[in-house]
Amino acid sequence: MNQILGEQSIQFENPPYLIGDAAIVGEKEGQGPYKHYFDKVEKDPYFGTDSWEEAESQLQLQTAALALQKTGLTYGDIRYIFAGDLLGQNIATSFGLMDLNRSLFGLYGACSTLGESLTLGAMTISGGFADKVMCLTSSHFGSAEKQFRFPLEYGNQRPLSATWTVTGSGAFILSNEEHAGAITSHIRITGATPGAITDFGVQDSMNMGAAMAPAACDTIFKNLQDFSRMPEDYDKIITGDLGTIGQEILLKLLRDKGYDISRQHMDCGIEIYDPKTQDTHAGGSGCGCSASMLSAYILKQLRSGTWKRILMVPTGALLSTVSFNEGQTVPGIAHGVVLEYQ
Amino acid sequence: MNQILGEQSIQFENPPYLIGDAAIVGEKEGQGPYKHYFDKVEKDPYFGTDSWEEAESQLQLQTAALALQKTGLTYGDIRYIFAGDLLGQNIATSFGLMDLNRSLFGLYGACSTLGESLTLGAMTISGGFADKVMCLTSSHFGSAEKQFRFPLEYGNQRPLSATWTVTGSGAFILSNEEHAGAITSHIRITGATPGAITDFGVQDSMNMGAAMAPAACDTIFKNLQDFSRMPEDYDKIITGDLGTIGQEILLKLLRDKGYDISRQHMDCGIEIYDPKTQDTHAGGSGCGCSASMLSAYILKQLRSGTWKRILMVPTGALLSTVSFNEGQTVPGIAHGVVLEYQ
Repeated sequence: MNQILGEQSIQFENPPYLIGDAAIVGEKEGQGPYKHYFDKVEKDPYFGTDSWEEAESQLQLQTAALALQKTGLTYGDIRYIFAGDLLGQNIATSFGLMDLNRSLFGLYGACSTLGESLTLGAMTISGGFADKVMCLTSSHFGSAEKQFRFPLEYGNQRPLSATWTVTGSGAFILSNEEHAGAITSHIRITGATPGAITDFGVQDSMNMGAAMAPAACDTIFKNLQDFSRMPEDYDKIITGDLGTIGQEILLKLLRDKGYDISRQHMDCGIEIYDPKTQDTHAGGSGCGCSASMLSAYILKQLRSGTWKRILMVPTGALLSTVSFNEGQTVPGIAHGVVLEYQ
Repeated sequence: MNQILGEQSIQFENPPYLIGDAAIVGEKEGQGPYKHYFDKVEKDPYFGTDSWEEAESQLQLQTAALALQKTGLTYGDIRYIFAGDLLGQNIATSFGLMDLNRSLFGLYGACSTLGESLTLGAMTISGGFADKVMCLTSSHFGSAEKQFRFPLEYGNQRPLSATWTVTGSGAFILSNEEHAGAITSHIRITGATPGAITDFGVQDSMNMGAAMAPAACDTIFKNLQDFSRMPEDYDKIITGDLGTIGQEILLKLLRDKGYDISRQHMDCGIEIYDPKTQDTHAGGSGCGCSASMLSAYILKQLRSGTWKRILMVPTGALLSTVSFNEGQTVPGIAHGVVLEYQ
């Protein structure tokens, strides 16, 4: 069984079915343009806990539980979990999922982790290593600001290139069968293009869109080449959280390589907030941005057949406060996943 | 192709060949009982750089390069890399490997990351998603102390239950073919038992052996059950870094479940330093401990046919300074990999 395609892509021989999913977000996301699409909007930013980190753990756990509930499955049906978050040592994930008694692959790809998670989950199903797996990621505005910038109480100003970390989580159940209880899935993961780190020397941690755009460009370019496709072979090419500045750079970089994706491109970070009424500068970001948008909005467009084939490219900026303070650049990475309505 | 075995294990239908590996360690490890086994002992703790983090990046990069060199391969031959370290946002890995232009799956499983990496790498080969992949992990005493405890300059005292983070890295090349240049490999990864998080409520971050022992017990127990094996079916059952206190707990917990592994058990953390001449208290720890010992010593025993089949179980303690300071427990996780001489 050869599932190798081109320079760095994978074509799944047994494309896994995406049989269930859920998205839970915070209050700010629940006031944005997609407010009616999310499964749940939680108004308590602490999710009933005492700290931002526990809040994010609770958010991830609730989203996982909801995806199962909607699909009529239990944790016992899930063989492996592929999950991650933005916090040091992945603590939102570890403490969120530790009581589930399921084998866990902890992942870190910054905001690209959703793409990494779906790729590894799909490989696990297509390779015959499991019947059902769960892929999930989360981010939380409070825990991320505390981790990467300043505690919220400090009330520092943010430059216009900065993005707003989404409080949100998306959970996805992949299966080797299209049926789960009363549900029949028509969405399959048919391919993937795992990305390499790309460093254009950006040193501004408040301009992550610029840092991630070259990585997104590289992954999309490789995907189009490896699958011998043109941009119009996709109904949408969707990046994670480039924001308005990153989008501009991505479109230009790809145009320089001979591809115009301006008609297909959509960025979850740009979409999730309303720039007129919600003061989020360059848009949303975080592991939870692309994950909550994929479940809430994007999969619904596939499920209804409005879109037939999309390329989902979560984008990550690989920095820590330590690397940043030591004067390192902000390298980017992006993992592409092909989802199709069949 | 069904590679599912028992409750949570995998039996590889096309067991990948381990065709190349390398281990580089720091000066202290190079003074221990295994000093003649490592490929290289670097006396400069900064590895020629200006910070502990860059030192670890350099260590990881040099180890990857050496594994390739020993095998006669180039980075272009490696389709995907599965790597991780202990630092927040995996910065040793990101900055170490970013110039290689290879697709990267960033992993976080604390000191269990080697097991996670080898498992996912083996799945990738056995599932037909790549011809060759690299799996590698690292840890560095300086970067880990700064990250998790106190800067070295502070000179704080360590309790006797504490372990010493190994400055070391191990890199492993897996392939679907036994031949690589002039090399013919007889070592294959035949199975895996990915582990679940186990929390026994240990709250002492200076006693990680006790935190990880229940996870090691759970993974070893599941492995023996899933593969219908007894401890004597393995020449060695090797944990990552339980140390002397964790070992005692592991042996007792498994005895309570009906398995006596005292004759087969070996712990890389106990082995790597000499307790008489090297003051490291409960032993060594870190992602680089099991990785450097696997390459330096364990694979040589397999390669010579001295050992025919081993169960390698890297163990991780899932804490961060944030989770610890917020009063959370230290949950453990362990991923088991079966290596055989064939």
